[in-house]
Amino acid sequence: MDVVEYRPQPDQYAWTFGGAAPSHRIAPGTLLKLWTEDAFSGRITSTTDRAGGVLNLAELNPQTGPFFVEGAEPGDTLALHLVDLAPAREWGASTTVPFFGALTATDRTAMLHDALTERTWIYQLDRAANTVLFEATSVDMRLELPCNPMLGTVGVAPAGREVRSSLVPDMFGGNMDTPEMRAGVTCYLQVNVEGALFSVGDGHYRQGEGESCGTAVEGAMDVTLLVELIKGGAGPVWPRIESDTHYVTVGSSRPLEDAWRASQMGMIGWLGELYGLDRLDAYQLLTQISESPLANVVDTNYSAVTKVAKALLPPARAYGGMHSHLREQSATL
Amino acid sequence: MDVVEYRPQPDQYAWTFGGAAPSHRIAPGTLLKLWTEDAFSGRITSTTDRAGGVLNLAELNPQTGPFFVEGAEPGDTLALHLVDLAPAREWGASTTVPFFGALTATDRTAMLHDALTERTWIYQLDRAANTVLFEATSVDMRLELPCNPMLGTVGVAPAGREVRSSLVPDMFGGNMDTPEMRAGVTCYLQVNVEGALFSVGDGHYRQGEGESCGTAVEGAMDVTLLVELIKGGAGPVWPRIESDTHYVTVGSSRPLEDAWRASQMGMIGWLGELYGLDRLDAYQLLTQISESPLANVVDTNYSAVTKVAKALLPPARAYGGMHSHLREQSATL
Amino acid sequence: MDVVEYRPQPDQYAWTFGGAAPSHRIAPGTLLKLWTEDAFSGRITSTTDRAGGVLNLAELNPQTGPFFVEGAEPGDTLALHLVDLAPAREWGASTTVPFFGALTATDRTAMLHDALTERTWIYQLDRAANTVLFEATSVDMRLELPCNPMLGTVGVAPAGREVRSSLVPDMFGGNMDTPEMRAGVTCYLQVNVEGALFSVGDGHYRQGEGESCGTAVEGAMDVTLLVELIKGGAGPVWPRIESDTHYVTVGSSRPLEDAWRASQMGMIGWLGELYGLDRLDAYQLLTQISESPLANVVDTNYSAVTKVAKALLPPARAYGGMHSHLREQSATL
Amino acid sequence: MDVVEYRPQPDQYAWTFGGAAPSHRIAPGTLLKLWTEDAFSGRITSTTDRAGGVLNLAELNPQTGPFFVEGAEPGDTLALHLVDLAPAREWGASTTVPFFGALTATDRTAMLHDALTERTWIYQLDRAANTVLFEATSVDMRLELPCNPMLGTVGVAPAGREVRSSLVPDMFGGNMDTPEMRAGVTCYLQVNVEGALFSVGDGHYRQGEGESCGTAVEGAMDVTLLVELIKGGAGPVWPRIESDTHYVTVGSSRPLEDAWRASQMGMIGWLGELYGLDRLDAYQLLTQISESPLANVVDTNYSAVTKVAKALLPPARAYGGMHSHLREQSATL
Repeated sequence: MDVVEYRPQPDQYAWTFGGAAPSHRIAPGTLLKLWTEDAFSGRITSTTDRAGGVLNLAELNPQTGPFFVEGAEPGDTLALHLVDLAPAREWGASTTVPFFGALTATDRTAMLHDALTERTWIYQLDRAANTVLFEATSVDMRLELPCNPMLGTVGVAPAGREVRSSLVPDMFGGNMDTPEMRAGVTCYLQVNVEGALFSVGDGHYRQGEGESCGTAVEGAMDVTLLVELIKGGAGPVWPRIESDTHYVTVGSSRPLEDAWRASQMGMIGWLGELYGLDRLDAYQLLTQISESPLANVVDTNYSAVTKVAKALLPPARAYGGMHSHLREQSATL
Repeated sequence: MDVVEYRPQPDQYAWTFGGAAPSHRIAPGTLLKLWTEDAFSGRITSTTDRAGGVLNLAELNPQTGPFFVEGAEPGDTLALHLVDLAPAREWGASTTVPFFGALTATDRTAMLHDALTERTWIYQLDRAANTVLFEATSVDMRLELPCNPMLGTVGVAPAGREVRSSLVPDMFGGNMDTPEMRAGVTCYLQVNVEGALFSVGDGHYRQGEGESCGTAVEGAMDVTLLVELIKGGAGPVWPRIESDTHYVTVGSSRPLEDAWRASQMGMIGWLGELYGLDRLDAYQLLTQISESPLANVVDTNYSAVTKVAKALLPPARAYGGMHSHLREQSATL
Repeated sequence: MDVVEYRPQPDQYAWTFGGAAPSHRIAPGTLLKLWTEDAFSGRITSTTDRAGGVLNLAELNPQTGPFFVEGAEPGDTLALHLVDLAPAREWGASTTVPFFGALTATDRTAMLHDALTERTWIYQLDRAANTVLFEATSVDMRLELPCNPMLGTVGVAPAGREVRSSLVPDMFGGNMDTPEMRAGVTCYLQVNVEGALFSVGDGHYRQGEGESCGTAVEGAMDVTLLVELIKGGAGPVWPRIESDTHYVTVGSSRPLEDAWRASQMGMIGWLGELYGLDRLDAYQLLTQISESPLANVVDTNYSAVTKVAKALLPPARAYGGMHSHLREQSATL
Repeated sequence: MDVVEYRPQPDQYAWTFGGAAPSHRIAPGTLLKLWTEDAFSGRITSTTDRAGGVLNLAELNPQTGPFFVEGAEPGDTLALHLVDLAPAREWGASTTVPFFGALTATDRTAMLHDALTERTWIYQLDRAANTVLFEATSVDMRLELPCNPMLGTVGVAPAGREVRSSLVPDMFGGNMDTPEMRAGVTCYLQVNVEGALFSVGDGHYRQGEGESCGTAVEGAMDVTLLVELIKGGAGPVWPRIESDTHYVTVGSSRPLEDAWRASQMGMIGWLGELYGLDRLDAYQLLTQISESPLANVVDTNYSAVTKVAKALLPPARAYGGMHSHLREQSATL
């Protein structure tokens, strides 16, 4: 098995999906041991740091990569299996950002309000307990919250000659900010350009569904992932995620109902592929079994998830059993 | 304990929140043993029934009630504890309805498409296994799905002199269609008019989050509930639900992000009441711990849920421990 | 011609569409000479009045009526011809209202911001010049703006047993807040209940498209209107307005694109009725000739307008030439 | 005056904003005489052509340019004065495109409907009468509609390292599809990258507000424009347009209310710059004088317009009288 280890220097970060030169050329089957900087590019380190003061808006969500996957052609499906996500620092940070977040006026939900007060929270990591510590500032409250590492951003180069900021989620994946993107899952993305050119970043030690204030417990992450390529067929229009227990689709758009509609159509397509259900039967089944946890309601596009439990469905082998295969490989590492 | 049993005759159904004469006057503390007809008013009984043919659009979502709660005044909080929800028939039904549902043009997301094909599914209930049976029509697939009874509709009379169809969810509760409304929870609603005038209906033997096609596994239900009244203070702007494990708020509006924003603001308010957190601290905490399962993306207003696990929070006694009190009472029945 | 003059006393105002007892029973063909109070119920009279201090939120948008139209049955079409709209006071008022308006957080676009500053503007009417005077508070600017009287609110009782606040626009008309509702036009509304039960109110001496801050130049109005009834056929799903120069349809919903879609579908239907165009031809024609001025982006539902110039179209007689007939009648008064 | 004439060959079209090498380097003050191909890249020529059959989705909205403006730096303001727009063919075309348009399911308002029927309309141009001919297919109706040439697409390279398809409207301008972009106006765009890199395309011989079916009367165009550069200050966040009679701002986002909010905030900013009005005064004034014609409700972002009549306002000189200056220059050509 090819193994590539990579910790990018700050001048090696990618800031876009598409448009960045590949950091590596890798073959399908490669194991990547990566390090990702946090979404703030490491500029928030203390509760006295204010987003408006220390952040560089041109340097948010640094990406590790992109990786050129040999043999990947438009229409293929890239399979990224997250073997392990481990916090790479002893703390994570979250902060309000002026005119960014779900419960504030923004550049697009444009209003006459002044920005909300800026405030920063630092979450200390307790590796033994596997928790991060929420410390309230207005009252004496300290909460040990389970550390649930996830990647906010996993994406390939977009279609249609576009180059998108690493802050954007869309059909190409990107900044979906879904807690479903955790260790043990396989993410399937349609390849849009030769080499796929995927990158990852935006590690969260923990995030609620919706990512209300716009920033999770942001932290540098050690990311171990296996890369596979599924040739031919037609890649999924919207990102898919498979875990041992669930099939998951992610839609990203505005308004939020359209993001969710996209994820639902994605799942209807997937159920059709797996079981031969026609679209009305899949619609009906989804009506009764869909789990619909929101991902983010803060980014350029909002992201919504449709999720179905494998336990409710007959056995099936998505992409020829790719997820099981990668799980097995992962177990041997 | 006062006990009222009530199985309305068809001419006794209420079709609105507000505007209907009370079926009963009850005192706080009363136990209600109710029967609710299904959302179709019992008109869909076979897979050959078509919504367009058999439904009466003026008679959907029949309500059992409304109940006039003695002593309830505007600004009080009504607490409805769902002791038990039991399917009252041996089958439930779901059907596509022309121009209704999340993945179809509707009267408001108005488009030039013809209606989707009408199709009806009947789910046989297996009481021993506690399952309902999905039978695909396009392939040979039969799935035993867990029976998870819930009430689509729990609401009080609206504020502002309004009378709303029982198909509407809003601040007064109503047709929220959230799977969170299941046995064992307590629902808190602000009282808007003297007597509160609440009603219930729209039993679902099972529903996915979002209620994609617009109709769950709809079925008549035997509903046991305890009614309590919390005087004074200020009732919650948006509906709240408390279970043994979670605090839940529901927002209903369009677009979907506004429904979710309302539920988030509802929870920020609740966390403030319970723990004294200021709004930025509550916003931050919610960012990391919110669960955000959708309720419905099909009704007049869409409904979204914000949910937090009690296990992550310090102990607290919402409404003076009302939920625990009702759970204890319920255990003695 | 029957003539009814009516200036309601404050205790005679209606506050809802539906649910209010008729103030008068009138025959089709009746001429109404009405007085309408302003949307603030006359409580804002000076630039030092603050909405939060003086308004009674339960008494906004007082309606004059409702009028029971003899012979009107569900499915009929009510035709209301605005003969004249004349300011009934020498000034109008506009004010910011906490958490109401297009560029502020609201009860539904719920956010953590404090309310915008409250400020009130009084517009003096110059009857000779037919202007209202904008006086800036932050700089020395005084602008004489043309007085363009319109009615914010024209509606019938809703369908489906509902009673809606007079602040709501929807299929029944209501608080559409479109500058198209001016003297000389005929408004067509589907009758939903026996007698139609229409009312009018919310005079604006002037309003921009969108009604940004939520309140126009609000003023009491002398309203002269002719009432006619078109029996049979099927009333329009969404409100229609006919002027000497334009056909206009109004849709009201959220998000705003759905309001506009409804107005477009309304016009596609109308063009089909007038010219026999099939829906794709009407869609195409509308693509090239639609005027789409917004009405309001502030109310419970947003309202959007689709408007086509008669000059671009072959001659036609909507509703058997009802508008011309009413114009002629109006000219004889 | 420098004059550049340019009729790109098909292999010289640009398909993106940003990311394309400049076709020319020009100095501020240059007069451009350009030719633009239609949005279909000339592939629709007959009523029997079907979008699904003949269009290449990777080759829509060909751009003429981009032009590198010497001395233009981020933060500057580019002024593009449309001297003349003249149809370059004797006909224009419009067609339904599968899953594109305002009244159809799309890739984002994703639904289970089949695509609408494809149909194509060819509009013959009558240069003497200055009309285009609508010919209905379902009935015998032929309408001579005024030819009102406009450019659907005027934009600069985006900020933030992005490259966007020429089908996208956003802060950088782009595919706004507003009928306000006609001969005689000056468009102001913030410069985001060195040289501005602007391009134009997507001529419409006529378009209704909203561009319902997604395609206007699309036609090749002879475009004459003057290029100026305003150094320093801060360019407008959202595109501005100035005509002899109006100030116009364009916002592009989803949902549609956010597009309109952006245009309103743009105008509030502009009124502040021109007259010193504080934001509440500008909000108030806009409430009474805003014209709000929609631009498009079909593109990747929807575009909405806020427009105010100069006749209602005191005289002012936006950008030091740039528009008047360009009008005068234009008159000398």
